[in-house]
Amino acid sequence: MNKISIKEILEQPVLINNLIKNEAEHVIEICSKLKGKFDYILIAARGTSDNAARYAQYLLGSYNQIQVALATPSLFTTYQTPPSLKGALVMGISQSGQSPDIVSVLESAQKQGCPTICITNDTSSPLANVSDHIIPLRSGAEKAVAATKTYTSTLTALSLLSCYLSGDNKSRLNDLYILPERISKVLENTFENIGQTSRYRYMNHCAVIGRGFNYSTAFEISLKIKELTRVIATPYSSADFKHGPIAMVNKGFPIFVVAPSGKMYEHILGFAEKLIDLEAELIVISDRKKILNLGKASFVLPSGTPEWLSPITSIIPGQLFARQLAIEKGLDSDNPEGLSKVTQTF
Amino acid sequence: MNKISIKEILEQPVLINNLIKNEAEHVIEICSKLKGKFDYILIAARGTSDNAARYAQYLLGSYNQIQVALATPSLFTTYQTPPSLKGALVMGISQSGQSPDIVSVLESAQKQGCPTICITNDTSSPLANVSDHIIPLRSGAEKAVAATKTYTSTLTALSLLSCYLSGDNKSRLNDLYILPERISKVLENTFENIGQTSRYRYMNHCAVIGRGFNYSTAFEISLKIKELTRVIATPYSSADFKHGPIAMVNKGFPIFVVAPSGKMYEHILGFAEKLIDLEAELIVISDRKKILNLGKASFVLPSGTPEWLSPITSIIPGQLFARQLAIEKGLDSDNPEGLSKVTQTF
Repeated sequence: MNKISIKEILEQPVLINNLIKNEAEHVIEICSKLKGKFDYILIAARGTSDNAARYAQYLLGSYNQIQVALATPSLFTTYQTPPSLKGALVMGISQSGQSPDIVSVLESAQKQGCPTICITNDTSSPLANVSDHIIPLRSGAEKAVAATKTYTSTLTALSLLSCYLSGDNKSRLNDLYILPERISKVLENTFENIGQTSRYRYMNHCAVIGRGFNYSTAFEISLKIKELTRVIATPYSSADFKHGPIAMVNKGFPIFVVAPSGKMYEHILGFAEKLIDLEAELIVISDRKKILNLGKASFVLPSGTPEWLSPITSIIPGQLFARQLAIEKGLDSDNPEGLSKVTQTF
Repeated sequence: MNKISIKEILEQPVLINNLIKNEAEHVIEICSKLKGKFDYILIAARGTSDNAARYAQYLLGSYNQIQVALATPSLFTTYQTPPSLKGALVMGISQSGQSPDIVSVLESAQKQGCPTICITNDTSSPLANVSDHIIPLRSGAEKAVAATKTYTSTLTALSLLSCYLSGDNKSRLNDLYILPERISKVLENTFENIGQTSRYRYMNHCAVIGRGFNYSTAFEISLKIKELTRVIATPYSSADFKHGPIAMVNKGFPIFVVAPSGKMYEHILGFAEKLIDLEAELIVISDRKKILNLGKASFVLPSGTPEWLSPITSIIPGQLFARQLAIEKGLDSDNPEGLSKVTQTF
């Protein structure tokens, strides 16, 4: 109990380092085959992998000018009315590669003559079998039910893809190479301050705010908290939060704010200040003093990480917080009751 | 206080009837101009309009074989890196037509030479000004802060578009023509049973489950509850719920289940039975006895509504429940504290 999850969280710097080193050439080859072959990317994914897909929307949109759409798998399964995928590169993301509905989307793409690609931890899975190209996660078996290392590996695989789909990638690759070091740093920082978690032993709900690249992080932190602690954690973009949900904020309402440096920082800072006016309690994940000071609890990110890679560092405090909170609540962070590792969705 | 919201909710059958009658020819004309001009549709929307966009994903996917993607507006605004929209018809949905980020997406589409269309209640708004084609909602001014009538009008406008984008539409149009009558019926049914709401006076959180066509309904019910009652209401697809959130269900956990007849019904029924095993408390919206009987509270939908139109009837109990709960809590359902009608997102 609680031994597997920590082992897998700690493996992340090494696994990401290996992935970057060992998959680069393969990804270069895939990119050369795919260039000019599609107008947009359609991603099919569920759960944690769907959160990685949200990252891809910003990453590939911003750096590769590629519009990324998220598939609605039930159109391919229950409704049996697959839309036309003309112009699409269809990507499946699934650590297990087992989910029948994700496989269905790629099968339909192949039937329609679209190029397909998948990111998976199992290269002999059904998903891999229907993909023209496979980026393996090389994460080793993930035994804890809640995904951690396969999430950051998936984001890293997407980062490799983004770098090699564009010509001018030298400085971006340099940032990617020092990413494992930065992940080690944030693991260290978070460990030193994980005691802050005990304050939230009796928290029964919270919101998690992120925007842009870190919209994905808000979803993934929220999912880890729900999976491991049974706390009702809900992710929001700060933009959407103002369109309604802000009405529910009252004194002491706990809100995670994911706010690394980057183009979204000033927006999130302004939003955090508004939340403080509403007397919300903030738990801040950032590398910037000003916003960290607004947090009742705060987790420091290493400075210098570019915004496009920040989702891979900023999820770490969320993973460790969720695990620690599970422990404080006397729950099993390796095998949360009621969940199974592979979810079969039809 | 509480006079405007009910007036606007009750207007819906008449407004929808007028929209169907008065916009049909215009929509036929738009469809003839757009046919064959795009490979997929990209929708930009926020809040309630974004929930309508989710409906469009299933409606246009299922009946028109069109892949619908949802835009990430901040790529066009904060990041200033608009993706290539080659192959896309770009659609903006906004009742006010004022949101600067939605306007930005359509501006970029026009610059890139893509066809554009909007659905709005204000044909002289900034959004209308950057759209090649405009479908007006004809809803009259919406004065309550939480959108109700413009939501169902938007779904109706999308239904018209779906019918006229496909050739074989006679039986679908017949269903559309009797929709206003069915909305009147569900308004009546709900009124008779709105007393069930008082049980939830001290509810402080809930989940709302829908899937397929009614994934949109889950989001919109949840948004109305958050806006009007400050209750933490979170929408889920039953597929995603199994990927983690199910861990937080404990005895008495209140869950709305949107389950009209249709291809998704058996899935949702099976899922509801699982939730009952977990001792959750269900609030069921359906036309089917078996699942209605699982609800501690239940709201009856008129039978015979096809699944593709059911989101326009099944949202009605959600609107009335949220309003009634606000009243039970002593809140103002016309002007919820902390919200404004037009949200400016940059």
